[in-house]
Amino acid sequence: MTTPLEVTFELAPWRSALSRALHRNRAQPFCRFLQLATVRSDGSPANRTVVFRGFLESSNRLMFISDRRSEKIDQLHQEPQTPNRTPFNAEICWYFTKTREQFRISGQLSSIDASHSEVSLIAARQHLWQRISDSARLQFAWPHPKDVRTKDSNFEPSAPDSQMPPATFCMLLLTPLNVDYLSLSGEPQDRIIYSYQDADWTRQVVNP
Amino acid sequence: MTTPLEVTFELAPWRSALSRALHRNRAQPFCRFLQLATVRSDGSPANRTVVFRGFLESSNRLMFISDRRSEKIDQLHQEPQTPNRTPFNAEICWYFTKTREQFRISGQLSSIDASHSEVSLIAARQHLWQRISDSARLQFAWPHPKDVRTKDSNFEPSAPDSQMPPATFCMLLLTPLNVDYLSLSGEPQDRIIYSYQDADWTRQVVNP
Repeated sequence: MTTPLEVTFELAPWRSALSRALHRNRAQPFCRFLQLATVRSDGSPANRTVVFRGFLESSNRLMFISDRRSEKIDQLHQEPQTPNRTPFNAEICWYFTKTREQFRISGQLSSIDASHSEVSLIAARQHLWQRISDSARLQFAWPHPKDVRTKDSNFEPSAPDSQMPPATFCMLLLTPLNVDYLSLSGEPQDRIIYSYQDADWTRQVVNP
Repeated sequence: MTTPLEVTFELAPWRSALSRALHRNRAQPFCRFLQLATVRSDGSPANRTVVFRGFLESSNRLMFISDRRSEKIDQLHQEPQTPNRTPFNAEICWYFTKTREQFRISGQLSSIDASHSEVSLIAARQHLWQRISDSARLQFAWPHPKDVRTKDSNFEPSAPDSQMPPATFCMLLLTPLNVDYLSLSGEPQDRIIYSYQDADWTRQVVNP
């Protein structure tokens, strides 16, 4: 039964290639690890490994988690230094080692914490917190990241509540606007650019 | 015998950790693959996989290769949009899957082609060209990257000269200024920040 609120949702055309890559590389637990690039307030790039936490329900938005105290959250909240807003503030590079495929996905990255205005995203954040492991949850109670470590730094805090996320827990959402797919195993390599324009995805085969 | 021209060279303190990681992960050919982040002219981040080609002789500078026609070369040559020069224009993220170690190395990335003024770097570029595989060399004779691919696109050009690099071949050099090392296998994780300041490296253990 459909309700008036139900939104039509279409899988983006690159989703099937990504699903296939995840499936074919599933024997390697690190196949869900990828590199997330953002831009620092001084205009220099930052790049770190994050874990793919699935797609937000009924959307093409990728989920990650982050500590509110980490630098990447600052990088998202800062005002852009350039006069015009940049078209996107993040690009992930996701390389699958077994099948030798690369997905470069760029778009708008946003951070969802307890103060977010959309109730459905607050609920998604809470649901995500409940799904992660105990050890992943514990890290959000660790001392402040990147502070000087001392022998008094407490890395054995009491376990956080497994139902309600702490203030330090952020859900990151990447809304893809461009996907650059490369398969190194083709002869020659295969490369396809997907672009989101006018509420629709275009697909173009290009030279590798 | 030393000559007056011989420059004292010290291995940076993070080099031993990186060498050990490369050694311990050597069974995985992709352990030399890493992700290189730069900033586009519109201020948005770019991120792609590149292959580590060793260190420039008697230096701590990392070598990669790139096609002159690729976008990352444009990203290096453009003038910075921000009033002050950014401290660095690239950050690599290098994750070793077996030992679960991450090196984030940021610094100044430069591109060396045949027109470069330093003779020693021209020679290093030529030497690097001679060392790469035939199939890697062939890619520099392929049609223009990212142009629309047609059935007439010729991906079987005649093999380039194996001694003299073509104009499309660039050696990329990353001069590290900051290294953020993280080991996920520690209990808790180990994180060390190395910074290059006043012609010397500092080392600080920080919270993960």
